[in-house]
Amino acid sequence: MNDAFDPSRLQVIAFDVFGTVVDWYGGIAAEAERILPGVDGGAFALAWRSGYQPAMKGVMERLDQGGAAGGFTLLDDLHDGILEGLLRQFGFEALPPAERRELNRAWHRLPAWPDAVPGLERLKRKYIVCTLSNGNIGLLTEMAKGAGLPWDCVLSAEVFKAYKPDPRTYLGVAKVFDVAPREVMLAAAHHDDLAAARSCGLRTAYIERALEFGPNQPKDVSARSENDLHARDMIELAELLGC
Amino acid sequence: MNDAFDPSRLQVIAFDVFGTVVDWYGGIAAEAERILPGVDGGAFALAWRSGYQPAMKGVMERLDQGGAAGGFTLLDDLHDGILEGLLRQFGFEALPPAERRELNRAWHRLPAWPDAVPGLERLKRKYIVCTLSNGNIGLLTEMAKGAGLPWDCVLSAEVFKAYKPDPRTYLGVAKVFDVAPREVMLAAAHHDDLAAARSCGLRTAYIERALEFGPNQPKDVSARSENDLHARDMIELAELLGC
Repeated sequence: MNDAFDPSRLQVIAFDVFGTVVDWYGGIAAEAERILPGVDGGAFALAWRSGYQPAMKGVMERLDQGGAAGGFTLLDDLHDGILEGLLRQFGFEALPPAERRELNRAWHRLPAWPDAVPGLERLKRKYIVCTLSNGNIGLLTEMAKGAGLPWDCVLSAEVFKAYKPDPRTYLGVAKVFDVAPREVMLAAAHHDDLAAARSCGLRTAYIERALEFGPNQPKDVSARSENDLHARDMIELAELLGC
Repeated sequence: MNDAFDPSRLQVIAFDVFGTVVDWYGGIAAEAERILPGVDGGAFALAWRSGYQPAMKGVMERLDQGGAAGGFTLLDDLHDGILEGLLRQFGFEALPPAERRELNRAWHRLPAWPDAVPGLERLKRKYIVCTLSNGNIGLLTEMAKGAGLPWDCVLSAEVFKAYKPDPRTYLGVAKVFDVAPREVMLAAAHHDDLAAARSCGLRTAYIERALEFGPNQPKDVSARSENDLHARDMIELAELLGC
């Protein structure tokens, strides 16, 4: 850290969502098993999520080439594009369109980690708490409604017409609230997201989510000194910030 | 109405904010009197608000001419531009910058009409409730935090890079939530806003706010048949929708 972190100078905490606030592995695995009889839900969830980075990369390249005219793609549509191949791969290519849509919207119904709602309730007494996710606004809003996540504001790649780790997203949060980047903290369970935020001048908090990829693929969640804070979960984050 | 209104087919209620959900007249009058000793707060509030339409018109003309490159202006900045002239007009041109900023942010601290929070609490059990305001996201978020407005999502001209009554704003709400325009209702205290929403296919609810312009300028709030619903306040809106 180049300068000492002072929680009293912080104004906004922006949260990565998938993996950090909600359990995409558990949620997608359960919904896949409900809608696709006999499927290995865990394998399906991992395969779906692994298609995310390549799909995102494709859209970002098109965006870079065409500017605004290149078109911004909602995560719902990216998810559906990946799902098409997955259904073939897992032997469910005959799934009716209405059920495919229902399955794709499983991302709108992901369960929150148990500490997320009580953690946010405490944090929002002192700070503005918002999302900063590549998920689209509609997805994040329905998820918040379903899981009871008390966001002050839903911010998304859709607002900034750029995906994380594009600097426009991190700096966009500071701009929306008319504060300096160092008055904003990104909280995430992913070091690459935090590193990109830090390079824009934001504060960073790492949240441990050892089981993000399910019980068979525990993640290394050891602390790294470059983050301002390291918290076991969102309740500990509130404690570290004196909320 | 061309087709019968069925509340069970509604998904989203988007609210105009200034005048409909919060009392800009009372809030600005009180804050002006606090920060500008001896000023006539009511006259100051009316003068500030009357500068809004011309300022908005100027920005929309620039947007039309220059497209995205014409630049989108946040309402905070429009308010500040109007405030500069007002301070001269009311004899406060020597106001220090920090106090001018504090006064401009009075729009972030407007009080909700007394029925707004309980009305939204009821409506959000059944529908997605969001803002659709020309106010910027930061302004609307701080206002919601201060007044306890439990929005599911803060939508703004800033998200759509267009101001109401541009169709991109009304249709943008439907697009964000992936629903048909007729599954969205605009609730507002202003017939021009409702008419523009209706021409985009949205449902409309008129909310009476007879004292929007203060106690000396009562507004005609009689019902007009072109709206799907007419409610005395947001609690009656919840009742009309069976919430």
